[in-house]
Amino acid sequence: MPELSQAKINAFHGIDILNAAQFTKENLETLFLVAKEYEKCLKEKKRLYDMDGKVMASLFFEPSTRTRLSFETAMYRLGGNVITVAEAADSKTSSTSKGETLRDSFIMVDAYADLIVTRSSEKGSAQIAADAAKIPVLNAGDGIGQHPSQALLDIYTIIKEKGGVDGLSVALCGDLKNGRTVHSLIDFLSLYKTKVILASPEVLAMPQEITTKMQAKGLEMEVTNNFKYACTKADVIYMTRVQRERFEDLAQYEKVKDDFIMNGSMVKDFKPGAIILHPFPRLNEIALDVDAYEGAAYFRQAANGLPVRMAMIALVTGNVKFATKI
Amino acid sequence: MPELSQAKINAFHGIDILNAAQFTKENLETLFLVAKEYEKCLKEKKRLYDMDGKVMASLFFEPSTRTRLSFETAMYRLGGNVITVAEAADSKTSSTSKGETLRDSFIMVDAYADLIVTRSSEKGSAQIAADAAKIPVLNAGDGIGQHPSQALLDIYTIIKEKGGVDGLSVALCGDLKNGRTVHSLIDFLSLYKTKVILASPEVLAMPQEITTKMQAKGLEMEVTNNFKYACTKADVIYMTRVQRERFEDLAQYEKVKDDFIMNGSMVKDFKPGAIILHPFPRLNEIALDVDAYEGAAYFRQAANGLPVRMAMIALVTGNVKFATKI
Amino acid sequence: MPELSQAKINAFHGIDILNAAQFTKENLETLFLVAKEYEKCLKEKKRLYDMDGKVMASLFFEPSTRTRLSFETAMYRLGGNVITVAEAADSKTSSTSKGETLRDSFIMVDAYADLIVTRSSEKGSAQIAADAAKIPVLNAGDGIGQHPSQALLDIYTIIKEKGGVDGLSVALCGDLKNGRTVHSLIDFLSLYKTKVILASPEVLAMPQEITTKMQAKGLEMEVTNNFKYACTKADVIYMTRVQRERFEDLAQYEKVKDDFIMNGSMVKDFKPGAIILHPFPRLNEIALDVDAYEGAAYFRQAANGLPVRMAMIALVTGNVKFATKI
Repeated sequence: MPELSQAKINAFHGIDILNAAQFTKENLETLFLVAKEYEKCLKEKKRLYDMDGKVMASLFFEPSTRTRLSFETAMYRLGGNVITVAEAADSKTSSTSKGETLRDSFIMVDAYADLIVTRSSEKGSAQIAADAAKIPVLNAGDGIGQHPSQALLDIYTIIKEKGGVDGLSVALCGDLKNGRTVHSLIDFLSLYKTKVILASPEVLAMPQEITTKMQAKGLEMEVTNNFKYACTKADVIYMTRVQRERFEDLAQYEKVKDDFIMNGSMVKDFKPGAIILHPFPRLNEIALDVDAYEGAAYFRQAANGLPVRMAMIALVTGNVKFATKI
Repeated sequence: MPELSQAKINAFHGIDILNAAQFTKENLETLFLVAKEYEKCLKEKKRLYDMDGKVMASLFFEPSTRTRLSFETAMYRLGGNVITVAEAADSKTSSTSKGETLRDSFIMVDAYADLIVTRSSEKGSAQIAADAAKIPVLNAGDGIGQHPSQALLDIYTIIKEKGGVDGLSVALCGDLKNGRTVHSLIDFLSLYKTKVILASPEVLAMPQEITTKMQAKGLEMEVTNNFKYACTKADVIYMTRVQRERFEDLAQYEKVKDDFIMNGSMVKDFKPGAIILHPFPRLNEIALDVDAYEGAAYFRQAANGLPVRMAMIALVTGNVKFATKI
Repeated sequence: MPELSQAKINAFHGIDILNAAQFTKENLETLFLVAKEYEKCLKEKKRLYDMDGKVMASLFFEPSTRTRLSFETAMYRLGGNVITVAEAADSKTSSTSKGETLRDSFIMVDAYADLIVTRSSEKGSAQIAADAAKIPVLNAGDGIGQHPSQALLDIYTIIKEKGGVDGLSVALCGDLKNGRTVHSLIDFLSLYKTKVILASPEVLAMPQEITTKMQAKGLEMEVTNNFKYACTKADVIYMTRVQRERFEDLAQYEKVKDDFIMNGSMVKDFKPGAIILHPFPRLNEIALDVDAYEGAAYFRQAANGLPVRMAMIALVTGNVKFATKI
């Protein structure tokens, strides 16, 4: 990987991170180099002051404990503070149900905070935030839209675990239709020389709009509904959950629900050194007996969320300093 | 405006801010001078330590994202920390439903924090807090009672936008019966030589108890149910929402619901330099095409919440220091 | 009490505090000496840095405003930061309903934070956390299991109020079947030469499993369903609430519901110097006219939660420093 230069760092200052498609390979590498440096700081238990005195607005209009805690910890580890909206799933709370008011909320928070991290169940809401606010906005997931911070830590994990992305076969498995994570991830994968195996029940296939775009970018893809086959062919197996609520026809769900479940007995057929990733939460799609497998990288992946999000926060606010004093 | 003196600042130390009526004009000016200084600090991105090591209890037993985030940001910008209760609208959570237990809660929090900011749907709850706690209490809205921090930033905004309050015509529009904001605001307006136009549907008129009190104070008032007329006569148009849930008779709601809606075509009939204020959240009572109007001051008004609340927090805890070092 | 030694302090480093039974009398004394020192720091308004740069995960999967705010304030008073999950009682939020996923959550948070404080309605959940996480876990209540931090502050309060625990008669009153507080407290009491009076309606008696264990430890116990009798015999009256929802047979509830209510007229029959404790929240089981009684120690008891929890946090993370500089 190339060196970290101030000019490359500065290129992030003031931008919003809304989707994976906005990244170049060079941008990605800058972000990962910064993340790697922060990871080193964390390991050495350095007390950082990069965001000292700054305030991050953590606006989660849809519950996502993990992502929220990860972003908020990242801010605290950088020495900053956090204001939080953590709405419950069934919340009819106040003023966030309508698009217009969401815009008003973001304009207001723009006057309070130094950056916004936001999640919503509505696709496009992060763009509303970015349009409304002058301060940087980080999209922490907008409905079935994008989830770039997750995809960034996914790629970061692949690089850490496998030494790089080029030349790998990556199987995206499960619900490729509704999973915003895989929508962001495939964008990043298209920047590298990878082969992507799209393994899902037919009704949950990757939207054609996306595969067409990827084809145009020259990404090598293979489509299958055979989960076990995909697992044996991949260097990286990326699991997502097949959720009942996504099916209009429950009979269809019953038919496929057990097809995309990984268990310990499958591991012996994996390629040597294959790793398993999962954006969490998992229910039963990865059996607990897989956890002991050396390539079960999903907890390490989750831990990588911290330095990657620290890098995102510090980069877009122009505060990458690795400062250990006020 | 007069100078800021230490004696005037000290007069705030240890007091509760529960309602607008407790303020003298001199107190108001002290608070605004402190707020102005904090606004300058914010603009210059100064890292302040006035509340370093202190803890604010932010107890919102009724949802109010904006007010809560504004107070919490104010505390963080002063270098302090925040413990938060942010209950959902429909929450039956724990122990806050009964007056007695509310009192117990405040006694307990008194032992933990350095000040309390509280909101509740029950009128008088801020007084319960003030009686229970020895530490200062800031009322962030108690039912249809008072909302002094909002009214403070309203007046602060009027002074900033119009250079002062004396001599202005201020139209309070919409729901004057249930709006705690306008109940606090009219108290402040009575300290100045203003003319107040009370524009509302008859069923949502300003309670007579209040108008009688204002008359006794010598406040000049005009009552109308003609919204457009009020708008053309005012230097400051203060909008509030006409909410369906306030009407016992829905037929009555249907009759008046569209009468108090402002749109871009009305602006040409305003007095030159007239400004529009709104305590937010807005739904449709101000159309989006009004936002482009130079006098649409509601977002600037919301931003003023930060320095005004910083001043409130620092004043009542005796920590106005503008300290940029620990 | 003996001196505070570094060796005794170090013995806490890295341990989980899950239940009362894990404590020896010597451990208790170490914790109380540290708490006493922190109490002194609080009284002198010292700005502490013991947890500077550290992050506490405050994971409350069941609402408990008081305990949560107490732990979070403790962390802030030590100079640290907090990430929070504060779920509503009726929440179906995300991923915390199943045991497996709870474990996944704790593994993940382990990668973010420096310690975990957790509460859940399910007995044994704190043990799940401790098994999943390498960082220290403090049990803030797990269903009808244990609530050691409450019991620690109870004993701390008894020592402060009465000069010690040996030789006292302690009446545990109310719901001894479901009250996790009294389950933890009786464990601590068994370390001292106390007499315990177990006063409850028969259907809410202390589980036999516990009384058998206490008997084996040599704890002197008296069982009664006569609340007034218990009150006149005790040096410490520990009140808990008799909750309707604990009764299968409502007729039974109606029969006993008024038997365990204390009011001001009872105080004259207490032993001289008797104190009343309550873990809060109280509803009507202690009438408001008792508050004026000098021995009504429950608010002082609640305030003791702060230094005791500061001691717990600093001890298990190895950060007892009483540091007033960064």
